Amino acid sequence: MSAATPRAQLPEPPYYVVMFISQRTEGDAGYAAVADHMVERARRQPGFLGVESVRDAQGLGITLSYWRSEADILAWKQDAPHRDAQAKGRAQWYSRFEVRVARVERSYGFAAEGPASA
Amino acid sequence: MSAATPRAQLPEPPYYVVMFISQRTEGDAGYAAVADHMVERARRQPGFLGVESVRDAQGLGITLSYWRSEADILAWKQDAPHRDAQAKGRAQWYSRFEVRVARVERSYGFAAEGPASA
Repeated sequence: MSAATPRAQLPEPPYYVVMFISQRTEGDAGYAAVADHMVERARRQPGFLGVESVRDAQGLGITLSYWRSEADILAWKQDAPHRDAQAKGRAQWYSRFEVRVARVERSYGFAAEGPASA
Repeated sequence: MSAATPRAQLPEPPYYVVMFISQRTEGDAGYAAVADHMVERARRQPGFLGVESVRDAQGLGITLSYWRSEADILAWKQDAPHRDAQAKGRAQWYSRFEVRVARVERSYGFAAEGPASA
């Protein structure tokens, strides 16, 4: 999902996260273009805070999307183009997936010191 | 993290998740063996429910570990061998990471119909 930023810039908790754990089927079948489009569309949704996404060579992926509220999550789930993408996901793109919605309570981070990037 | 199951079997919510988003440095430097050992150790901790982990070819990873309670998470964070691993993580294995702790409120899943596995 090339349109996803590697590291989301998020506000202080609390906020909400949708954890999407998915196994891709083989072949693209239009997936990459729609996935990028959905990330761009999500960015314009009310309450969208950020996204982090990783997929390995075996097609197992975890995408974390962050939202201000549960209501914002439900509104995005009902977005018509997103609903079309969800249907294609079940029909073609994923052999299985899990969705878990959670309230982020606290967070912290670490960054190694290093030379400033050019 | 080969000792991590691809898909966790979890109880009904609520439960807690630790989201660990990390960028590995180059080279192994003892990482793989300790990571596997830490997953095996976590499995024996009180309140451990499961783990899901993905890392891509660029070294960006997301690991989701699931726990019964915040107290169980804090106890695991204080585990002595785990603290040693955390120190090595900051010193050697990760150029950066984020940790987010959240309370899972709801979940659902999908699995495509297909031939029974042999």
